[in-house]
Amino acid sequence: MKYGIVAFPSKQLQDFANSYRKRYDTHYAKITPHITLKGVTEVEDSQIESVSNAVREICNHFAPISIHLSKVSSFAPVNNAIYLKVDPTEQLLDLHQALHSETFGGEAIYKFVPHITIAQDMNSGEHDDIYGQLRMTKVDFSETINRIHLLYQLEDGSWTVYETYRLTDEA
Amino acid sequence: MKYGIVAFPSKQLQDFANSYRKRYDTHYAKITPHITLKGVTEVEDSQIESVSNAVREICNHFAPISIHLSKVSSFAPVNNAIYLKVDPTEQLLDLHQALHSETFGGEAIYKFVPHITIAQDMNSGEHDDIYGQLRMTKVDFSETINRIHLLYQLEDGSWTVYETYRLTDEA
Repeated sequence: MKYGIVAFPSKQLQDFANSYRKRYDTHYAKITPHITLKGVTEVEDSQIESVSNAVREICNHFAPISIHLSKVSSFAPVNNAIYLKVDPTEQLLDLHQALHSETFGGEAIYKFVPHITIAQDMNSGEHDDIYGQLRMTKVDFSETINRIHLLYQLEDGSWTVYETYRLTDEA
Repeated sequence: MKYGIVAFPSKQLQDFANSYRKRYDTHYAKITPHITLKGVTEVEDSQIESVSNAVREICNHFAPISIHLSKVSSFAPVNNAIYLKVDPTEQLLDLHQALHSETFGGEAIYKFVPHITIAQDMNSGEHDDIYGQLRMTKVDFSETINRIHLLYQLEDGSWTVYETYRLTDEA
């Protein structure tokens, strides 16, 4: 099965992101707004529980993470996707790295740019038009991520939560 | 905010349910296939954490629950909704009742009929036509529910998971 690890931001921030995703994000109906911490990864169905245990172990070593979202940005020209930029912090980068250890199949393919996608799968003309409209949007959210989720993907592309983990820093 | 409590069945069963929901369920894109244990309930945003603690306390007293799905059924004429029937068991009914104590705003309004909805919001003609097609479908799934989830609803009607609880029977 395909799994991924995300943090869902506050309801307020999800509602804000959805106001754009509804029109511009082809994944709008497949998952609610999220910060991806580990992208789509293949695992044997029977291994999901051991993945879950490994994530729990990691989360026991992390305290809740303060995040700040500062602007609308874009991955173009690499990828015509527009997103709410989450300012990278040492804590976020450490958590991302911990979720890309040997246990999870090794290092990340891409540099980690924390974000919440609000538009994707546009051609270049559409991208430039929509980004032109959105880039001046005032974005200023501060909140705390105190839990992350392990999800798996259904055959229709939608995502179901398997497990939730608190960032407890108990260990 | 509006919250609810559900159990997500296995990926296999969710994929089966989605093969019908995709065409017939208006809530298809709002949430993945689920067994509702507590329907939409209003709570102050600040109270969600205390609700979560109460659910966790309950789950500590429940062991994983074996379920069996035996057929396609319908709530008509009360409600034109078609569902996969989950055979009621004492464990399921006890869990449902525990989630409808004083702490959660009191008793359930409706008798608990455990199910996974696969079609809804049809007029009577549509219902009779679709139910006529689906009622003879062979349904025979047996699995174990070992976790339940607290969800909250976004402004667009979609549902985000707040927390996952294992049925541990540790207490």
